[in-house]
Amino acid sequence: MNAHSLPAQADDFPAWYAEVVRRADLAEHSPVRGAMIIRPYGYALWEAIQRRLDDRIKATGHENVYFPLFVPEALFEREQELLEGFAPEVAVVTHAGGKELAERLVVRPTSESMIWATYARWVRSYRDLPLLYNQWANVVRWELRPRLFLRTSEFLWQEGHTAHETPEEARQEVLRVADEVYAQTFERDLAMPVLRGRKSPSERFPGADETFTLEALMGDGKALQTATSHDLGQNFARAYGVRFAGRDGELHHAYATSWGTSTRVVGGLIMCHGDDRGLRLPPVVAPVQAAIVPIPGGDGAAVGEAAAGLAEQLTGAGIRVRLDAREDVRPGAKFHEWEMKGVPVRLELGGRDLATGTVSLVRRDGGERTAVPLAAAARAVTDALDRIQRALHERAIEFREQHTLRDPSSYDALRTFLAAAGGFAETPWCGSEQCEQRVKADTRATIRCLLDAPAGGSCTVCGGPGTERAVWAQSY
Amino acid sequence: MNAHSLPAQADDFPAWYAEVVRRADLAEHSPVRGAMIIRPYGYALWEAIQRRLDDRIKATGHENVYFPLFVPEALFEREQELLEGFAPEVAVVTHAGGKELAERLVVRPTSESMIWATYARWVRSYRDLPLLYNQWANVVRWELRPRLFLRTSEFLWQEGHTAHETPEEARQEVLRVADEVYAQTFERDLAMPVLRGRKSPSERFPGADETFTLEALMGDGKALQTATSHDLGQNFARAYGVRFAGRDGELHHAYATSWGTSTRVVGGLIMCHGDDRGLRLPPVVAPVQAAIVPIPGGDGAAVGEAAAGLAEQLTGAGIRVRLDAREDVRPGAKFHEWEMKGVPVRLELGGRDLATGTVSLVRRDGGERTAVPLAAAARAVTDALDRIQRALHERAIEFREQHTLRDPSSYDALRTFLAAAGGFAETPWCGSEQCEQRVKADTRATIRCLLDAPAGGSCTVCGGPGTERAVWAQSY
Repeated sequence: MNAHSLPAQADDFPAWYAEVVRRADLAEHSPVRGAMIIRPYGYALWEAIQRRLDDRIKATGHENVYFPLFVPEALFEREQELLEGFAPEVAVVTHAGGKELAERLVVRPTSESMIWATYARWVRSYRDLPLLYNQWANVVRWELRPRLFLRTSEFLWQEGHTAHETPEEARQEVLRVADEVYAQTFERDLAMPVLRGRKSPSERFPGADETFTLEALMGDGKALQTATSHDLGQNFARAYGVRFAGRDGELHHAYATSWGTSTRVVGGLIMCHGDDRGLRLPPVVAPVQAAIVPIPGGDGAAVGEAAAGLAEQLTGAGIRVRLDAREDVRPGAKFHEWEMKGVPVRLELGGRDLATGTVSLVRRDGGERTAVPLAAAARAVTDALDRIQRALHERAIEFREQHTLRDPSSYDALRTFLAAAGGFAETPWCGSEQCEQRVKADTRATIRCLLDAPAGGSCTVCGGPGTERAVWAQSY
Repeated sequence: MNAHSLPAQADDFPAWYAEVVRRADLAEHSPVRGAMIIRPYGYALWEAIQRRLDDRIKATGHENVYFPLFVPEALFEREQELLEGFAPEVAVVTHAGGKELAERLVVRPTSESMIWATYARWVRSYRDLPLLYNQWANVVRWELRPRLFLRTSEFLWQEGHTAHETPEEARQEVLRVADEVYAQTFERDLAMPVLRGRKSPSERFPGADETFTLEALMGDGKALQTATSHDLGQNFARAYGVRFAGRDGELHHAYATSWGTSTRVVGGLIMCHGDDRGLRLPPVVAPVQAAIVPIPGGDGAAVGEAAAGLAEQLTGAGIRVRLDAREDVRPGAKFHEWEMKGVPVRLELGGRDLATGTVSLVRRDGGERTAVPLAAAARAVTDALDRIQRALHERAIEFREQHTLRDPSSYDALRTFLAAAGGFAETPWCGSEQCEQRVKADTRATIRCLLDAPAGGSCTVCGGPGTERAVWAQSY
C-alpha cells in the first residue's frame, strides 16, 4: 500500500485494478451475478468514448438503428455456427405477461441473427446495397468469473452490421472500420496504442471468414482485445436467406460484416495508463480536464473569488473544469482524490499565488508543477492538456516497445517470456493449430493477431517453415 | 387515399399513422411480439430528441449512470405496490449459461427496485444527498396490443432517480424536471404544446405520492402522456431501507423522485404535426432539415454543379442537408418522398432557376414556394427553418384551443364531446373516483391531469362541490 492506499501495480495488479475501479467511483458489482453498476464518473468516461466512436461511425457513412433485445430461439438457432459459439452463455426468457411463452426468447448475446433475418426483408436488388448500420445496445453473455468492465454478464457496446454486393466491398468495410473508427479513436482519443492484425482461425468469431482485431498492451504485460471487425463472407446471408438480384440479373447472397467494441475499453483505459496513484485519463475523454483546488489561509474570500474567476475563464475556453470548493475536505485529500480519478491537470490557488498573480499547474501524468500567470491560465491549461495527451500516447508506445520481444532465439526464450506475461512476443509461425495449442498449454498465451508482414524465418515453436508473423501474449 | 397513397387522417387516423410510420421508414414490427425495429430515419429522430433531453438533464445538475437489465425477483417483489402495478407485464429469465437459475430474474420494466437497493449502500449521511442520477436504457413491459412507438413490449427511455434530504427538495426536483427538462424540450424543440398538471389518485404511478404529467393533444383529438415526473415520498426508501444520519443526528428515510420519457414521444411527434401528405418535422430535431432536388433538363452538368455548391453552402451554415442526386428517381417522386419524411424545406434547382440566379424554396408546413437568391440561400433556409419551427408550434396551440371544451353546460355536453374524442375537456370535478369511473364507462375518457387552478364551479358529472379543475380526454 502506498500513500494513496492502493496496492502497488508491481505487487498485485488485479488488486490494484479492483481498488482503482472502486476508489475512482467507476463501477461496482450488483446483486445480479456478473452484472455491474456503472457509477457516474465511469459512465461519463464511457459517454466520452461513445461520442467519439459514434462521430466516426457516422463520418464513415453509417447510420444508427435499433433491433430488439430478445431473439426467438428458433431464429437464433438457425445459424448453427453462431449457436455453437454462444449457446452455453445465453440467458433465456421463458415467461412473460404472467404466462409461459410458447417460444422461448434468447436475450441477445449479439444481434446477427435478428438483423440478418430482417435484412432478408430489406434487400431485394443490388440497388438496396450496401446497408451500413450500427446499433448501441446492451448484450448479455453469462459470465462465471466476472471482472468489472473486462468481463461482465451484461455489457454496453456498439455492433455494426453491414451488407454488401461484393466480397471486395465487404473486406474494404472491415478494414476501414478497423482503421478509421477503432484505431483512430483508440490511438488519438484514448492515447492507447493498438496492434492491428488478423485472428488465427482458432480465435476467429464463429461464422467469420476473417476476423481483424485491435490489441492493446496493459500495464501488467497482458493484452486486451479492444475491438474486432469481422468479414462474415456469405455465411449469414445463406443462413438467413438474404439474396439480391445482381447487375447480371441473377440472385446472389449478400456479403456481411460485423464489428464491435464495448465498455471493456474503459477497463483497457485504466490498465493502459494507470499508475500507483490511480487513473491517468487522456484529456480528450477525461470527464473533468482540470480540477481547481483553492488553498485556505490568509484572505479566503479573495482566493474563493479568484478561483471562481479562474473556473469561468477555463470554462469559457471550452475546458471541462471542476472547482472543488468543499470546505469539509482538506487540500491534501482533494489532491489525492483528483489524482485517483486521473484528472489531467490540477490547479492550486492560494494567497501566495494571488500575491504574485499566478496559479500552480500540476500535471497528473508526470507530476510536474509550474507557476503560470493567472490571467493566461486557460492558454496554459489548453497547452498542458495537448502535451499530456501526446505524452500518454508516447509513454504507452514506449512501454509497449520495452515489452515486446521480437524473434526470440529459441522456444525456451519465447516460453519464459510469455509465461511471465512479459508483453507481446513477435515470431514466425508455421500456421499449425498444434503449435498454437502447445504455447497455450505451456504459457497460457495465445496468438493475439497475425501481422501483415513476412514471417521472417522458421516457426519458433516447431522449427517448421514460417508462413505467418504472429504476435503472442497472455490476454484478458 | 390521396396522391401520396396515404389514408386521409379524417377517414382513418390509425391507418394513416401506421402508413406514415412504414412509408417514412421510421420503424417496423419484429418477429418478437410487440418489439419493434427502429429504422435509420426513425432512430435519427430519436437521437435528436435524446440529445436535447440529455443536454437539459445535465444542465439541471444530473449525471448519467447505468444499472443492470435484470433484477432478482426477490428484490423486485420487495416493493409490493410496484409489483401490483407491473407484475403481470414482466418478462422473466429462468435459464442462463445452460442451467436453470436458482433465482429468477425479472427483465426491468423500470429500475426503482435495483436503484433503491443500491442507494441503500450509497447513502449514509445528509452529506451524501441529493443523488441526482439518470439512465438511458431499454425496458420491457409485455404488450398484448402493440403499436409502433406508442405501445411496444420493449422501448427505449430515460429514467431519472433522485434521493433527497427533505420532502420540499424532492417536490422541487419533480417540478423542475417537468418544466426545465420535459416542457422545454417538447415545446421548444418538438414544437409540441403540453398541458402540465397532477394525475388523479387512480392514474398515479404505483408507489407515488404525487405524479405530474405532460399531456399533448394528437391530430385525432386524443391525448398522449409524453412524460411523467413522480414524487415518491419515502415509500421506496422504506421498502429498500435507505436511511441517512440527518443534521439532527437522527436516522431518516430519504425522499425519492423518478421521472421518464421514451420512444413513445416519436409517435407523439408524428400524430401532433403530421398531415395527409405525411410527417411534418420540427426543424430543431429533423434529421434532414433541407432536401435539394436538382431538376433535370437543359444543362444537367451545370445544374448538378450548382446543386453541389448549394449543399456545401448550406452545410457550411450548419444546416443538415441532403442532396438528392439519384438519377433513377423522377423529381416528382422525390418531392413526395421528402414530404412523406417531413423534411421542413425542399430546394428545387433547375436550368430556369440557374438562369435567374435563384432556387425555389418550398416549405413543408404550409407548402409556400418562394424564389430565393442562390447566393444567399443559406440565410433564406435558416430563416425559413426558424419560421417553420414557430409556425408548427403556433398551429399546434391553435389546434388544441379549437379542440378544447371549457366548462360544458351539462354532463350530456361533456359526454358527447369526450365520446367523440373531441379533444380536451376542462371541467370542475368533485374529486370522487365514482365520477371518474362514470365518465370512463360512458366515454372511454379519463382525467389526463389536474390543473393548478380553482375548480370554477360544481362537478360537471355529479353536480357536487368542485374541488379540482380536471382535464379529460380519450388517450393513447
